[in-house]
Amino acid sequence: MISRLIHIDANSDDSLQSQIRHKLVEGILVGSFAAGSKLPSSRKLATQLGVSRNTVVLVYQSLLDEGYIESRERSGIYVSEKVSQGKVELVQNSPLQPSFDDSSTNNHHRFKGALATTTATSCPQNWHKYNFPFIDGKFDSSLYPVKEWREANTKANTPREIYQWSELQGAEDDPMLLDEIRTKILPRRGIQANRDEILITVGSQQALYLICQLFVDSTVTVGVEEPGYPEMRELLVNQGAKLHYQPIDDKGLVVDEQLNHCDIIYTTPSHQTPTSITMSMDRRDEVLKKAHEQDLLIIEDDFEFESNFLGQPHPALRSLDRDNRVVYISCLSKVLASGIQIGFIVADSGVIAELKKLRKMVMRNPPLNNQRAVAYFLSLGYYDAFMMHLHKVFFERWLTLREALNTYLPNCIDTGPIQGGTAYWITGPKQLDGEHLREEAAKVGILIEPVKRYFASTAHPENCFRMGVTSIPNEKIRPGVQKLAALVHQLTADYEEKLTNAKGKLLSEAALKQALPGALLECQMVYGVPCSIELLADGRMKGRTGGTDSEVDMGRWWIEGGMYYRQWKLWAYGEVKGFYVIMDGDEMKWFDQNYCFVRQLELKGYKDQS
Amino acid sequence: MISRLIHIDANSDDSLQSQIRHKLVEGILVGSFAAGSKLPSSRKLATQLGVSRNTVVLVYQSLLDEGYIESRERSGIYVSEKVSQGKVELVQNSPLQPSFDDSSTNNHHRFKGALATTTATSCPQNWHKYNFPFIDGKFDSSLYPVKEWREANTKANTPREIYQWSELQGAEDDPMLLDEIRTKILPRRGIQANRDEILITVGSQQALYLICQLFVDSTVTVGVEEPGYPEMRELLVNQGAKLHYQPIDDKGLVVDEQLNHCDIIYTTPSHQTPTSITMSMDRRDEVLKKAHEQDLLIIEDDFEFESNFLGQPHPALRSLDRDNRVVYISCLSKVLASGIQIGFIVADSGVIAELKKLRKMVMRNPPLNNQRAVAYFLSLGYYDAFMMHLHKVFFERWLTLREALNTYLPNCIDTGPIQGGTAYWITGPKQLDGEHLREEAAKVGILIEPVKRYFASTAHPENCFRMGVTSIPNEKIRPGVQKLAALVHQLTADYEEKLTNAKGKLLSEAALKQALPGALLECQMVYGVPCSIELLADGRMKGRTGGTDSEVDMGRWWIEGGMYYRQWKLWAYGEVKGFYVIMDGDEMKWFDQNYCFVRQLELKGYKDQS
Repeated sequence: MISRLIHIDANSDDSLQSQIRHKLVEGILVGSFAAGSKLPSSRKLATQLGVSRNTVVLVYQSLLDEGYIESRERSGIYVSEKVSQGKVELVQNSPLQPSFDDSSTNNHHRFKGALATTTATSCPQNWHKYNFPFIDGKFDSSLYPVKEWREANTKANTPREIYQWSELQGAEDDPMLLDEIRTKILPRRGIQANRDEILITVGSQQALYLICQLFVDSTVTVGVEEPGYPEMRELLVNQGAKLHYQPIDDKGLVVDEQLNHCDIIYTTPSHQTPTSITMSMDRRDEVLKKAHEQDLLIIEDDFEFESNFLGQPHPALRSLDRDNRVVYISCLSKVLASGIQIGFIVADSGVIAELKKLRKMVMRNPPLNNQRAVAYFLSLGYYDAFMMHLHKVFFERWLTLREALNTYLPNCIDTGPIQGGTAYWITGPKQLDGEHLREEAAKVGILIEPVKRYFASTAHPENCFRMGVTSIPNEKIRPGVQKLAALVHQLTADYEEKLTNAKGKLLSEAALKQALPGALLECQMVYGVPCSIELLADGRMKGRTGGTDSEVDMGRWWIEGGMYYRQWKLWAYGEVKGFYVIMDGDEMKWFDQNYCFVRQLELKGYKDQS
Repeated sequence: MISRLIHIDANSDDSLQSQIRHKLVEGILVGSFAAGSKLPSSRKLATQLGVSRNTVVLVYQSLLDEGYIESRERSGIYVSEKVSQGKVELVQNSPLQPSFDDSSTNNHHRFKGALATTTATSCPQNWHKYNFPFIDGKFDSSLYPVKEWREANTKANTPREIYQWSELQGAEDDPMLLDEIRTKILPRRGIQANRDEILITVGSQQALYLICQLFVDSTVTVGVEEPGYPEMRELLVNQGAKLHYQPIDDKGLVVDEQLNHCDIIYTTPSHQTPTSITMSMDRRDEVLKKAHEQDLLIIEDDFEFESNFLGQPHPALRSLDRDNRVVYISCLSKVLASGIQIGFIVADSGVIAELKKLRKMVMRNPPLNNQRAVAYFLSLGYYDAFMMHLHKVFFERWLTLREALNTYLPNCIDTGPIQGGTAYWITGPKQLDGEHLREEAAKVGILIEPVKRYFASTAHPENCFRMGVTSIPNEKIRPGVQKLAALVHQLTADYEEKLTNAKGKLLSEAALKQALPGALLECQMVYGVPCSIELLADGRMKGRTGGTDSEVDMGRWWIEGGMYYRQWKLWAYGEVKGFYVIMDGDEMKWFDQNYCFVRQLELKGYKDQS
């Protein structure tokens, strides 16, 4: 009841009218009387407060004039909606509050350090409303360790803990967090470090920023990966660095004499951003050797080291570094809810001391309540547990996506031979316009990531895009890819071979019966490993893929109505599928019942018998 | 029991020795076997694990060689203390881990953005161990709203809330916090702002940093207060700004034609850093007028607006600004435990948008869990409640300190006519060496703040220091000042007038009896206001101070043994004190029983009758 909130002091020097006005304005500004809510009539309020109606009428009138309240015909007096938009002409205690008029200064001409560009984010704000969000780096919230974070957070906020971390103000980090990182995280990467060799940052972005501030100016040439992490490129450009764009191959950053004129190399060896390629051990040695020979500094961005699915993760460059040339960056954001933002830098104590001075100038230190909460999260073992959990979840999704791509887009796309990471870099058919695909896919609820932003050069491939697994539940992956595959085929229909115009010769039922029993078919999986299929004369078939995670499957095959049919036990979802077969030399091409091209294989030793 | 932690897999390809070694190293690194803890003997562990003793001996030997464990004579095997210092030669999974040798790179020659200077903090890390910490800005932990913060923090970390603020990742701030600041904090300063006119920062340091990044480069001249906030000076120097040092007087920043060649003015109007002087309303108008005439931008650092003790706080410059020239900064750190670090900037939406881009580059956004927790702290009304609480506590301490200074160091120091703030800027006797006083005071458990760091000029007064009230409990203030006063007198003893060498004439008992009844004494309080004392003929006395917080007190006086005695009801702690009196013209000087100078007063209309 509004009158409860308005206490009138009969002994006050202030007039009744002023007191009521004051309380009403205060209530409106602090939200006790919410925007849009109805106020009592002047008569009713006067009665409640025991004052004359005229007093209330005068107060209401002044508030109406100033826009705090509004009168709605035949309905009454309401708190103005404009209040919450900050549009009221005058504010309490501030009769001088101006509304800036047209002659007021626009401050744009004063901007000295305005950013010429900022990397547009590639993901819509409402990504979670899409049915099939194949977006990397966003998380479906089911993955947050909510209960465990709450426990760690509660532990970090007992009175004793608060007093402890409050004493740390200044430039120092929480020693408990430093020790947890030293003993629980760094050993996984083969890195050892003392407390004074670690700096806590607000996420990895701040880590990169501080490192750029320290090591980079316009006299420095920095070698970056192309394609590479656009936010780092932006930081480097902002520092006035000269950039050298170094290509990557399927072993990671290419190491050659082009790096000789660099001063610094920035690299993402665990899973290259954006291609997810893991730098090979040989390549790691080469990079370090190059750095030694050419006196380079290496910035190692190890943001995703835990998601190596095939084989063990390679040790970090920092752990292999024999002469202190590697500055190492990582963060814990993949495990904690994003928004908490804890990252860290490992380097020699001289570098860390200097970075600490810079950090102090930029913002003192990362919030200490969060440092302590994350320290507890680690010390309670939740980091390890959730890392394993995420690893399991992402690995499953990663395999599901690979399987779906291989089933629905064979011979059409290429993901490269990656061993982990949480996104696939996908090269589509030559004629595919990736940006157009992205737009069309979004219309049917599928989010894929365009890749233009990863390239510094304007001469980037148009037919690439990325698909990530952090944000999409496993069960959505197959239907999403199926839908996307239909779209890809639709967009490239004009260029795709059809049964009706394909080069080569359509095999009749008789020709199939002659060619297929005992045949050995060879093809390539979308992820770059070979696959061989043996069609046994008895109608069974054996399949085997190559690569580090070689798989085998059994199935059956037959010929029916001029088509080759097959059904695997596990592969291709165990579905029965029939294909028309065209042979062109020893190249075998499959077409579906709509005469659309599906896949090309090699039929070893095939000779046209006709 | 250690053997529980070591699970041996008989079917493993790994040897027993390797398995045991692996588990032990892991346990040591993750802290399951703590540094310094005793391990079982090789015989005992072998029995527990069911392996041959030789196996365990070989494992222990390898760990001894590598420094994980150490053998203490006649005592046994212990986990090495060195492990927790990160001094172990080799780390698990990382046979290549080097210990950098002397030939390894020292990276100092690569520093491009190293800071030439950093402002030394003026406060020892262990300030809370001092008995009398008169340090400003540090908090005695009894002031933290621990329970209320825990409640707000818990509310911000329910699953629903976590999902909500996690969605905000990117560059956006928590709309709930923006609205709480808009409706609960800014109206107190007379400021209205929309959401897009506010940016959340990690404390006020980040606010200043971002603003410098945006508005300042080497072409810009910035007018700063002298003495002023050293951290801001450092930021400006780092940006290459030209600095103009503008003096302050007892109305705040001096406004004159010297400001005409500035582009930007940085000012701390609520309580000037470091003098605590509040800028007068007239001066505020003058600053804004100057800014308008000379097309200046004003950076208003309003870090302490709530601690105006005498009279109402003046509205912020931003609220008086008619043509959008003021960029406003404040923070909530005074109310929350430090370490949480939430600050904010208010400016027009164009400026905020640009600052947001810069902030995104520096670190994305301030941790969102904290933004939400602080929003709840505000919405639950705890901010208001604690602000009032702190106001009360600090006001009490502020008065206590003023009273103590006035009692124990009259005519010796000057605090200036300040109305609030949490620190006094103290000008001591001309001959006092403030830095020497600080050193000597620290030895007896008193922390005062040296002021050299606030001056850009080397020609700063040597006899000044600061005393703050945020960190010292009320009951410690009087004894601390008493102790400090003794030290001041000791250090300036050579220069102080003594009864034995004072200019003027010592009044005998008879002369006192003639001169004092009915006399009107006038003097100055240390905080700059006049005080008059009327000695009534009947032995009573009346005292009255001037200024906005005029006080009166009654007491009694008498003459005894050639000394003037007095006792106030309230003033000077109601203590009985006797003084020898020397008259020099109409100047009256009091000396204590040790013949030391205490205070000088004017005896209106006194004529030497001798």
